[in-house]
Amino acid sequence: MTAPVIALVGATGAVGTVMIDIMNTRSSVPWGEIRLIASARSAGKKINVRGQELTVVELSPEAFDGVDIAMFDVPDEVSKEWAPIAAERGAIAIDNSGAFRMDADVPLVVPEVNADQIDNRPRGIISNPNCTTLSMMASLGALHREFELKELVVSSYQAASGAGQSGIDRLYAEISALAGKEAGVAAGDVAEALAAAGLSAEDSPFPAPLVLNVVPWAGSLKDDGWSSEELKVRNEARKILGIPDLKVSATCVRVPVVTTHSLAVHAVFAREVTVEAAHKIFSEQPTIVLVDDPAAQKFPTPADVVGEDPTYVGRVRQALDFPNTLDFFVCGDNLRKGAALNTYEVAEELAKRL
Amino acid sequence: MTAPVIALVGATGAVGTVMIDIMNTRSSVPWGEIRLIASARSAGKKINVRGQELTVVELSPEAFDGVDIAMFDVPDEVSKEWAPIAAERGAIAIDNSGAFRMDADVPLVVPEVNADQIDNRPRGIISNPNCTTLSMMASLGALHREFELKELVVSSYQAASGAGQSGIDRLYAEISALAGKEAGVAAGDVAEALAAAGLSAEDSPFPAPLVLNVVPWAGSLKDDGWSSEELKVRNEARKILGIPDLKVSATCVRVPVVTTHSLAVHAVFAREVTVEAAHKIFSEQPTIVLVDDPAAQKFPTPADVVGEDPTYVGRVRQALDFPNTLDFFVCGDNLRKGAALNTYEVAEELAKRL
Repeated sequence: MTAPVIALVGATGAVGTVMIDIMNTRSSVPWGEIRLIASARSAGKKINVRGQELTVVELSPEAFDGVDIAMFDVPDEVSKEWAPIAAERGAIAIDNSGAFRMDADVPLVVPEVNADQIDNRPRGIISNPNCTTLSMMASLGALHREFELKELVVSSYQAASGAGQSGIDRLYAEISALAGKEAGVAAGDVAEALAAAGLSAEDSPFPAPLVLNVVPWAGSLKDDGWSSEELKVRNEARKILGIPDLKVSATCVRVPVVTTHSLAVHAVFAREVTVEAAHKIFSEQPTIVLVDDPAAQKFPTPADVVGEDPTYVGRVRQALDFPNTLDFFVCGDNLRKGAALNTYEVAEELAKRL
Repeated sequence: MTAPVIALVGATGAVGTVMIDIMNTRSSVPWGEIRLIASARSAGKKINVRGQELTVVELSPEAFDGVDIAMFDVPDEVSKEWAPIAAERGAIAIDNSGAFRMDADVPLVVPEVNADQIDNRPRGIISNPNCTTLSMMASLGALHREFELKELVVSSYQAASGAGQSGIDRLYAEISALAGKEAGVAAGDVAEALAAAGLSAEDSPFPAPLVLNVVPWAGSLKDDGWSSEELKVRNEARKILGIPDLKVSATCVRVPVVTTHSLAVHAVFAREVTVEAAHKIFSEQPTIVLVDDPAAQKFPTPADVVGEDPTYVGRVRQALDFPNTLDFFVCGDNLRKGAALNTYEVAEELAKRL
């Protein structure tokens, strides 16, 4: 068997850059060729991957010739057009956009939860979940196998980088605008202080100031006041876990954190759960780090998880008033497990099968 | 009837200062005398209240002589000792500490929810709820009257000032420490950057960096991994609403916001609820401002609510998978409605009865 050829579409973007970092540090698969693909604007750029200097090639149908696996980290509309083209040319597309996630003919895969779904891909496309959903999937998947998940109430604490590089830039700019004047900026005058520093609200990817604030909104408006992000958490969790009638309520809130999404999770199961049993399950998962010792002031915080592959779980408590219910807090790097890492883990799974 | 005499114990503290601001702007009660009381260290200080220059007197049993209502904004142990002394001297004590909140002989009052409880005070003491609980009480009380509350799952986004002036100072210091270096501080190096700027972790009132982070902890450790703050939310909500078997799960998280606590609330009722009915109820409450128009990107954020008396409610959604259930987001200034304002509103209610 010849070593498989992998392509990375969107190689020069924020997630693409993390992806290359991941390929440089995870050597489990010796790819036959690594092909970097991007828009015409970035074509010709040279990037070092696994010790070789590679030249970025322009996105075209021919760019997929000979490719076994094509990972896509591009906007929805680019994926929508080009993932099927890659599949037609014989590649298996792994797509990190929202274009195909709820397509019944496209599996939505988190390897440690539903790796078996990888083989069921009639369109030649596999989808990668939304970063907020992904942050809690390893922990919920592990608990579901043991206790059967029935209901989920989650509140998110989402990082600025979930809105891309412009989100990161904006948060840094807002902090800089307050620098040196913090003590003089009354807590409620954030918007005025940002305007005075020349940061217009219109230029922000967020609908309100993010520094010294939290914003209960992510994504676009859907029916009945729900945000697209909240519906993704619900619908994708159902599909990944294979529980079509899972009850879910999510509230998605942006917080002034650069990277790593956190979630407060209230999970109701069919069978009796204990903190001890949950701790044991979490400890046994290779992609989960359990940090749960409040007596020693140890619990996960997003700043501790940036750049980490596993998701971190802590504050595990048995609900006092709800039977078979756990409350816990989970942090996952939204650029790694939430995006690039999960996509690459799917590619690794596929490589085993080629 | 002579005008009642009111005393403020802890007049020079963070909440005491807000209290004086509130007394200066709310003129409904023409107090006979306003007496400012503090520790020996602050005695003799002069503070302008309602156009008079008042001299702070030292806390002593005699300081309560002739006082009708004594508001306490001091640490638990000070309240525990001195509120009963004030009551013995004939004053009604309104205490904002945690000392008496769960005492069966002390009512826990939010005037717009359970004003009737004010008259049932065998110890001569009335308690003011914890600021996190208070932020959601006006909205939950109004919904409960109509729909009968059964279950509550809440996640908090709590401001630094909930930890007092040292919390505010620490957050500002952490922002200053990053000033000008933000772009150079990788998202995960916050702790190192703070240490390099001379801000030691040991000096912080928070168990982890708060800038560019969220910390899933507030208060002290209680049984089975619960924080004192989470148990307060549960136990105080039950007592205030008069629902001893209310099912509650709370996760309390500190966020890098100076002032105003926010909560994501999932509330299950006995009767059918609609967004329309909830909007109508919220709109009719004088102490609630409804800000709920996501199409126009309008929802409450804590920065908009600082210094405001009402609590702000938005993101009201009918749960998709849970019957009789609303999800919503609420913001309340933790120093005003969360502390000083509610205490003063109780005093105003008492004044009507004197």
